[in-house]
Amino acid sequence: MEPNIVPNSYFTSYEDLEIHRLMLEDDPRTSTYRKVILNNKAYFKDKVVMDIGCGTGILSIFCAQAGAKKVYAVEASNLANLAREIVKENNFEEIIEVIHCKVEDVVLPDNIKVDAIVSEWMGFYLLHEGMLDSVVVARDKFLKEDGEMFPQNAVIYVAPCSVPSLYEKWDNFYGVSMSSFSKHLRSDKSHKPEVMHIKSEDLLGEEVALNWINLRDCTVEELNSYSVQHVVGANKNGRYQGLCIWFECIFPELTTEQLIVLNTGPAGEPTHWKQTVILLPEEQIVEEKEPIAFKLDMNRDGENSRRYNLQLSLLDPEEIEHPMPCTCEMTKCVLISAVMKQQVEHAAQHNSVLKEEPIDDE
Amino acid sequence: MEPNIVPNSYFTSYEDLEIHRLMLEDDPRTSTYRKVILNNKAYFKDKVVMDIGCGTGILSIFCAQAGAKKVYAVEASNLANLAREIVKENNFEEIIEVIHCKVEDVVLPDNIKVDAIVSEWMGFYLLHEGMLDSVVVARDKFLKEDGEMFPQNAVIYVAPCSVPSLYEKWDNFYGVSMSSFSKHLRSDKSHKPEVMHIKSEDLLGEEVALNWINLRDCTVEELNSYSVQHVVGANKNGRYQGLCIWFECIFPELTTEQLIVLNTGPAGEPTHWKQTVILLPEEQIVEEKEPIAFKLDMNRDGENSRRYNLQLSLLDPEEIEHPMPCTCEMTKCVLISAVMKQQVEHAAQHNSVLKEEPIDDE
Repeated sequence: MEPNIVPNSYFTSYEDLEIHRLMLEDDPRTSTYRKVILNNKAYFKDKVVMDIGCGTGILSIFCAQAGAKKVYAVEASNLANLAREIVKENNFEEIIEVIHCKVEDVVLPDNIKVDAIVSEWMGFYLLHEGMLDSVVVARDKFLKEDGEMFPQNAVIYVAPCSVPSLYEKWDNFYGVSMSSFSKHLRSDKSHKPEVMHIKSEDLLGEEVALNWINLRDCTVEELNSYSVQHVVGANKNGRYQGLCIWFECIFPELTTEQLIVLNTGPAGEPTHWKQTVILLPEEQIVEEKEPIAFKLDMNRDGENSRRYNLQLSLLDPEEIEHPMPCTCEMTKCVLISAVMKQQVEHAAQHNSVLKEEPIDDE
Repeated sequence: MEPNIVPNSYFTSYEDLEIHRLMLEDDPRTSTYRKVILNNKAYFKDKVVMDIGCGTGILSIFCAQAGAKKVYAVEASNLANLAREIVKENNFEEIIEVIHCKVEDVVLPDNIKVDAIVSEWMGFYLLHEGMLDSVVVARDKFLKEDGEMFPQNAVIYVAPCSVPSLYEKWDNFYGVSMSSFSKHLRSDKSHKPEVMHIKSEDLLGEEVALNWINLRDCTVEELNSYSVQHVVGANKNGRYQGLCIWFECIFPELTTEQLIVLNTGPAGEPTHWKQTVILLPEEQIVEEKEPIAFKLDMNRDGENSRRYNLQLSLLDPEEIEHPMPCTCEMTKCVLISAVMKQQVEHAAQHNSVLKEEPIDDE
């Protein structure tokens, strides 16, 4: 079936094009960037933009369509050749300059600075194989002091979840008991995070943010290590089988009223990033409001700085500090929640009294 | 993300389990075998069966559930270990014997013969990476003279088609012209057959059978080479962009009334085999009834006998023989079709006259 694969030095590999096809056809991804750019023509008009890791060049073309004066489209791989062709077929050769090199090696004419950096640098769970380091370096080198980053912020969220596709149905699969199969499947998958779709209804508790990355001022060092320790009350009776990880990217508020967010979580439209799941070694049956305590560490790999090691630790809810208020059923948390609720209600009442009689009462 | 993948010698590889999951979850595949076996309990009762390439052992378990006296479940890979566990959890250790070796090396006690061979040996376009050679060798060695093969027959079909996912939409993709992208995508894919889903409505003409393999008597040599030369009239105006290849497997008619067929074509339920498409170097615009002439050669690869080379030749419809009747619009074919239709009608009339007055007329 693969008799003579003609070597194709024009691109890095055949897979490149398939990956770009997957990304282009990811509608939440492509249409969010398009909306962000084309809804902000008033901002982009006559701006100088840099698109880092431009791939096929589609984001650069959106910028040119939005009125950018100049777009530097930087692409390290041989895909830069294709980007040039696509720029040409859209008649933007005057506006878009495709630069075929690493962004770290780019030198702009007269050392000019750019008004905005547009980049789709996100990998699985945001940082996997990520290009964010390169984007940060380029920002420090090329972005004007008051320049804009697209996206501007990125957040990683984590929440406990069930993973029914790896547990259910195998006990009675077409009338056959295949528990050994699902056990080995899970065991194999427990060695590394699994990229898969998780449904909203399979989340077992509120998500917590692992980090909040401000793309305008974060440093490469800040991206080395993240950690969150958390307790959450289960939102229903269920089977706690893994930790679900996803991210959101938030774009600058400019001329549009609406905040534009690319949400890759279970509640959003499915994307090619799916979600990332760390499976527990053993499932745990939890009851509604039962506290689920965990710690997640995400550390850059020592040998390959483009990779991260994810480590999930299961904690004893008795031994760690709970958030305030906490959704769990432990006595202290129930009491604190009740008191805090009272205070909020009191404040609201007081507030409304003040509002009703704003001046005369003083 | 892949920090320390623990080597797992229990299975050949992690991917093994994922591939078996894909196959198990392929409902047309699994439920067709289940139906064939469990609808034929009267046949399977007390039979001795061999399951070649048993994988997880699910087909062997279906046979045991159907009443087989003995099942030899042969698996060359380390998956045999898992099959044993699954057999055990279904309490069929007395019936099913998992044999961990190549079927070519199997020796059965007292050189007994089996009543039936059950096997799911099919690869992409039926023969890719196929295990059919092994099944044929095992049949000659182990199957009783009047034994049954499940499946009993297999047919490869080919039909001209459109491949809109590689052509359409890219001319105006989110407002951007990306023809260069789709051109390179197609060019990359033209080097080898592409496994993908084709819709029924994208077929441009009736399918033709490349072969008809009778599993009860075919030889390994007969599997070396297949060729079909064909002309078909386009069933509508359209864009001829590739040749679509798929297969059907037909199971023995035993105690059930209904012929059970596993159809992997565009008209069937989608399977993990999808369809295989050979792309044309350039699309051709065709009009309804326009003759489409081609030759498809499928030859075993000289170096790797488990692979086949597929070659599509586009032919001049003027220069080759057309089937009779032919669906194309060429004068000769239209005339022949008209004459044949007349003859059929005449024969039908004559027949009905005979039927109405069966004896007196003589």
